[in-house]
Amino acid sequence: MVPSNVDTYVRQNESRFLEELLAFLRIPSISTLPEHKGDVAQAAGFVAESLRHAGLQNVEIIQTRKHPLVYADWLHAPGKPTVLCYGHYDVQPPDPLELWESPPFEPSLRDGNIYARGACDDKGQMYMHVKAVESLRAVHGGALPLNIKFLIEGEEEVGGESISEYVPKHKDKLKADVALVSDTELFADGVPTLCIGLRGLVYLEIEARGPARDLHSGMYGGAAPNAVYGLIELLSKAKDADGRIQIPGIYDNVASPEPAEIESWKALPFSEEDFRRNEVGATQLTGEPGQSVLARTWARPTFEVHGIAGGFTGAGAKTVIPAKAVAKVSLRLVPKQQPDRVLAMVKQWVQENTPKGIHTEVGVLSAGPAISVNPDHPAIHTAASVFSEVFGKPTVFIRSGGSIPIVGEFATHLGIPTVLMGFGLPDDGLHSPNEKYRISNYYEGIRTIARFLEAYGESR
Amino acid sequence: MVPSNVDTYVRQNESRFLEELLAFLRIPSISTLPEHKGDVAQAAGFVAESLRHAGLQNVEIIQTRKHPLVYADWLHAPGKPTVLCYGHYDVQPPDPLELWESPPFEPSLRDGNIYARGACDDKGQMYMHVKAVESLRAVHGGALPLNIKFLIEGEEEVGGESISEYVPKHKDKLKADVALVSDTELFADGVPTLCIGLRGLVYLEIEARGPARDLHSGMYGGAAPNAVYGLIELLSKAKDADGRIQIPGIYDNVASPEPAEIESWKALPFSEEDFRRNEVGATQLTGEPGQSVLARTWARPTFEVHGIAGGFTGAGAKTVIPAKAVAKVSLRLVPKQQPDRVLAMVKQWVQENTPKGIHTEVGVLSAGPAISVNPDHPAIHTAASVFSEVFGKPTVFIRSGGSIPIVGEFATHLGIPTVLMGFGLPDDGLHSPNEKYRISNYYEGIRTIARFLEAYGESR
Repeated sequence: MVPSNVDTYVRQNESRFLEELLAFLRIPSISTLPEHKGDVAQAAGFVAESLRHAGLQNVEIIQTRKHPLVYADWLHAPGKPTVLCYGHYDVQPPDPLELWESPPFEPSLRDGNIYARGACDDKGQMYMHVKAVESLRAVHGGALPLNIKFLIEGEEEVGGESISEYVPKHKDKLKADVALVSDTELFADGVPTLCIGLRGLVYLEIEARGPARDLHSGMYGGAAPNAVYGLIELLSKAKDADGRIQIPGIYDNVASPEPAEIESWKALPFSEEDFRRNEVGATQLTGEPGQSVLARTWARPTFEVHGIAGGFTGAGAKTVIPAKAVAKVSLRLVPKQQPDRVLAMVKQWVQENTPKGIHTEVGVLSAGPAISVNPDHPAIHTAASVFSEVFGKPTVFIRSGGSIPIVGEFATHLGIPTVLMGFGLPDDGLHSPNEKYRISNYYEGIRTIARFLEAYGESR
Repeated sequence: MVPSNVDTYVRQNESRFLEELLAFLRIPSISTLPEHKGDVAQAAGFVAESLRHAGLQNVEIIQTRKHPLVYADWLHAPGKPTVLCYGHYDVQPPDPLELWESPPFEPSLRDGNIYARGACDDKGQMYMHVKAVESLRAVHGGALPLNIKFLIEGEEEVGGESISEYVPKHKDKLKADVALVSDTELFADGVPTLCIGLRGLVYLEIEARGPARDLHSGMYGGAAPNAVYGLIELLSKAKDADGRIQIPGIYDNVASPEPAEIESWKALPFSEEDFRRNEVGATQLTGEPGQSVLARTWARPTFEVHGIAGGFTGAGAKTVIPAKAVAKVSLRLVPKQQPDRVLAMVKQWVQENTPKGIHTEVGVLSAGPAISVNPDHPAIHTAASVFSEVFGKPTVFIRSGGSIPIVGEFATHLGIPTVLMGFGLPDDGLHSPNEKYRISNYYEGIRTIARFLEAYGESR
């Protein structure tokens, strides 16, 4: 491959690009924790300033009911396509804190990686877009080879309510030919990867109540309902021993992948044993029999309990029958499953399976459908070709088991597909302690994105 | 009933007796929380000082590996029986704090009750023994009508390990004819009650581990084991929908109460509907079909989950597959069930029912057998007769579903029965927010205990 000017510019500015990202990562913009609201606002300010510095115009910090959106654009390439860059500047909580080898908001460079919460998900990846635009302007004499818009949110990790409200109300402002999102990963180290499918997500909180107050288990044990045990009984019925979801109707609309897609997965460099040992780190994998690991994580719905709390869990022994217990629960959805229908099924199932003496309530934290991207779209073609060039290998098309709800909103309200071009690695530990992002992937990501924008601009 | 001198003395000193108890209740002697170790020591000092003040001799604060024991005696009544008074000065944690109407360690007098953690369990009841002895000495010219020993512990709410080690090593020092414990309740308001049966307790912590670290539920959901869900699956198998324990062998040695005892329970003033509504406060009671509520809470084993924790339970949504989860679990035991055998059954059951991909470990926090007291013992006869006199009603004989492990230790190592003479009320809220103790029961308890000691001394 012949190095382009933009490649050279990126190489010459690597250390500054890294320093800027580290400053961004130091802001603990945890969107789910109210005590970090100020930090989230600070991160929004950082994003706005970095967009201005990159030469974007009409930079706006848009206040919402929760956390701000940041918008910016550069629209001086008439006749050229428009790309809408999306990312998020908020991060997951870092707990359990004691498992971090270096503090989550004091980025540490070790073994060629940046260790920090948000290093990969999504600050590191989002910031590549900004640096790609800066690099393109530098080598194109202050102009860009196409029109570009940025819409960056601060609520991706808490359901993305504000952007969901914003997009349908600002269709003209956000009008574009394609969206570009870097919030996914390479299938394997060095393998250029485009993601063409995402699972949807329904996230719930289920609360169980039993007795009016915590009771002494000696006096009342044997006769009083136990809220913790009631919740355990309920949740245990959600899946059979093999992991098949037992909620009636849940598999009704599950679309099977095309045989060609299943066939293509078999060619991917994937070792179930490596996955089990090095990524999951458990004695055994679980899940539906007769489905491959890739099918189970990409193309099948799931029911997971993310957390549970109730009763006494301090040191020592306390003999209470707890009055209350709560669980965080989600279902990942696959194409053709409708979030509203799934929600209704789950609520009815909870009602029908709540043990006697227990009262349950279901709260909905978020709900979004699965997404499929048409691999024959011109932007996907260009992306695949640039990606292959930069990495020197054929681009693979995969799905992701994760959920990026905004991709669905862009499809529904703006009528555009999304190029899901991510540079994370499978062991980057998103949402886990010691989240990392490989420094070389950060630089290659900037180059690839800049080259994609250049090529996509030239293609029209 | 003709008032005795001791009755008069108690009545004349009521307000001072109350003030002293309030001072005792202000000490947050929560034995299970390491940060309260100093408070527990302070409570031990308070007990020692109050025993000295009451005229007891040889007062000793006995250091242990955890919390001190307090010993004292008065042994100048040759030829008279010896009573060993037991109680505990430690209390349960007060959480959930937000449900207390007044702070748990700032006793509040409302509607004839003392509201405070430990008001009934067991500071208020233990302190009655001290005040009964003080009153007896006052009316017996500085002497006592019988020999008396006190052994008060500070670990009852955390398993009582230190006293369990102490008793078998000090059989001579603790030699007595009978033990006296006030850590139970009246069957109903105004009904003199002797407890002749206690359930045993095996208290466990079960930890489940799945993946090596918390995982992103999008990337891994469908293939990675979930520690929280694994623990849920395991625990859900402990009981069927009717509350019958499913651990093999668990009912093998369960002794059925004698028909006469079951008959006597039917005569007790008990309304299942009142119990459900006013004590439990749930929509329905639970437990084994075909067993009365009294049988279920007094004479049947139980399996309860006291608390569970794992994964993310903060505000908002976090999509992790948790690596670890832990539950606090206990089984209440009935006569003839051996704690060691039950422990072995539970451990084997855990091993055999742990879901695939999950690793479980069982930690034992305490284990003690159920207790039966022979109602024909002379001390029980005397206690019943004094109790009936003071309260003006026939004494009823009941069991308690709770566990007082020391009663078993006294039987095993000292060969003595225990008079379980408690003055709590069923709605006193032991281990719950707003624990209370009725002020008049405190005074009547002091009188009844003093009269019992007097009568038991005279009976020999």
